[in-house]
Amino acid sequence: MSKIIDGKAVAAAVLEECRQEVEQLKARGVTPGLAVVLVGEDPASQVYVGSKVRTCGELGIHSEKIVLPTETTQEDLLAVVERLNADPAIHGILVQSPPPPHIDEEAIVRAIDPAKDVDGFHPENVAKLALEDPSGFVPCTPAGCMRLLKEAGVETKGANAVVIGRSMIVGKPMALLLMAKGSDATVTVAHSRSKDLPGICRQADIVIAAVGRPEMVKADWVREGAVVIDVGINRVEDASRKSGFRLTGDVAYPEVAPKCAAITPVPGGVGPMTIAMLMKNTLISAGRS
Amino acid sequence: MSKIIDGKAVAAAVLEECRQEVEQLKARGVTPGLAVVLVGEDPASQVYVGSKVRTCGELGIHSEKIVLPTETTQEDLLAVVERLNADPAIHGILVQSPPPPHIDEEAIVRAIDPAKDVDGFHPENVAKLALEDPSGFVPCTPAGCMRLLKEAGVETKGANAVVIGRSMIVGKPMALLLMAKGSDATVTVAHSRSKDLPGICRQADIVIAAVGRPEMVKADWVREGAVVIDVGINRVEDASRKSGFRLTGDVAYPEVAPKCAAITPVPGGVGPMTIAMLMKNTLISAGRS
Repeated sequence: MSKIIDGKAVAAAVLEECRQEVEQLKARGVTPGLAVVLVGEDPASQVYVGSKVRTCGELGIHSEKIVLPTETTQEDLLAVVERLNADPAIHGILVQSPPPPHIDEEAIVRAIDPAKDVDGFHPENVAKLALEDPSGFVPCTPAGCMRLLKEAGVETKGANAVVIGRSMIVGKPMALLLMAKGSDATVTVAHSRSKDLPGICRQADIVIAAVGRPEMVKADWVREGAVVIDVGINRVEDASRKSGFRLTGDVAYPEVAPKCAAITPVPGGVGPMTIAMLMKNTLISAGRS
Repeated sequence: MSKIIDGKAVAAAVLEECRQEVEQLKARGVTPGLAVVLVGEDPASQVYVGSKVRTCGELGIHSEKIVLPTETTQEDLLAVVERLNADPAIHGILVQSPPPPHIDEEAIVRAIDPAKDVDGFHPENVAKLALEDPSGFVPCTPAGCMRLLKEAGVETKGANAVVIGRSMIVGKPMALLLMAKGSDATVTVAHSRSKDLPGICRQADIVIAAVGRPEMVKADWVREGAVVIDVGINRVEDASRKSGFRLTGDVAYPEVAPKCAAITPVPGGVGPMTIAMLMKNTLISAGRS
């Protein structure tokens, strides 16, 4: 019998913590501020940016949404980042990914002041994560997964954790968090080129699926009593829906869920945590300022 | 029947490559230079520093050995590092670890110009390793292990690699190298808090033992046909030796070796590779200058 890990409820609790922290910061004379930069008109990016800005508003965080045309040059975008770096009202800066193809995203990330890099993608924050230096920022999605594990009462010490996916956005930081002192999991990073992925997965006490393949993790990949965190958000065709599609994770939820001690659904699992942890990072930054 | 991976021979081949690269660099008017800073009188450190400087001499690399008294202050040591950062004759800088306890080693590492950080310990190089950016420096010991695997003809793609140990000197960079695109191993990082370490190890096609416990990895930890790389160098008492001790790895070599497809001995395995890769890194740096 699986326990469904309610990401919406955990995210709401995190946001409630944030609301209180905003008040404490304001009492100290600090109004936290987040700047979200969007280049171009990608519809999904517009939705993400909209939610981030709206959540700021709900918490009393000052936000700036800076929308730039698709044809914005690298230099102009860098100038915007530099202005935000210098702006004392802004504690967090993120440039929504992906930018248009003519933009060198890596150079933009490097240009963000690491002390305002609330996405945790700047090399200085990557290094701090690897070095277990808590003065950096942890990327929001893996930070959200760690919080879900904590809230679900999952013991990571000595547990076998299998992370499927090796991206710098989720897989690698997730692995680094799980193996760090204090978490103390035994961590396996598997990926599309791993041989016998089902067999590797079956060894896991904790499965983190972050590979971006709809319903790849099947029931026979998961051992009885495992905890499954599904980071995937995939669109699959579904003629029975008005929209013509539905969202699904990397895990075949209906068949996997009954075997798990705990599992996150999609939607309503990891998804809501990402914005919540972004707010947390913004407040951490404001608190340090 | 195990094939013994001869680290001395591979290191000699790497040093021969280095010798040729030094000639090519000199033909271009560049004399590569390495500065080795030793604070205090730790006997083991003196031996390591001595070997590094001697190897430089054998290859025609200019070296500076800077020996500072134990009571050197943080400020004085930083001033030395800054002088070396600014010195165009120096392409690689290392401060021998461990410094005396009053020195903040992390701050010293951060002070080294990342472009001269041939140890690969600066956060900028740590991040580059995690981000698979080849413009950084890879720490010498894991780089040496990768080279040994390559020379022994070991296929890492799709292989299950188990790294025992999660230090930033060996375990984590080793894991990052093995999981990177091109290496494509499935990597498990285990450590002293892992449960059923023998069982985890038995799954491995490749075992990297870097835990610092003499002869911990036993025959029944290793499956028939595995490849074992032993990074441990431990002193154990041995009354039969004149010195009263012998060196042993983290692997119980006599019982493990017969099961392996290939294994590194201690001494004569990974050990000689570390200096060889340090020379390589110094030449990479000189080549970029």
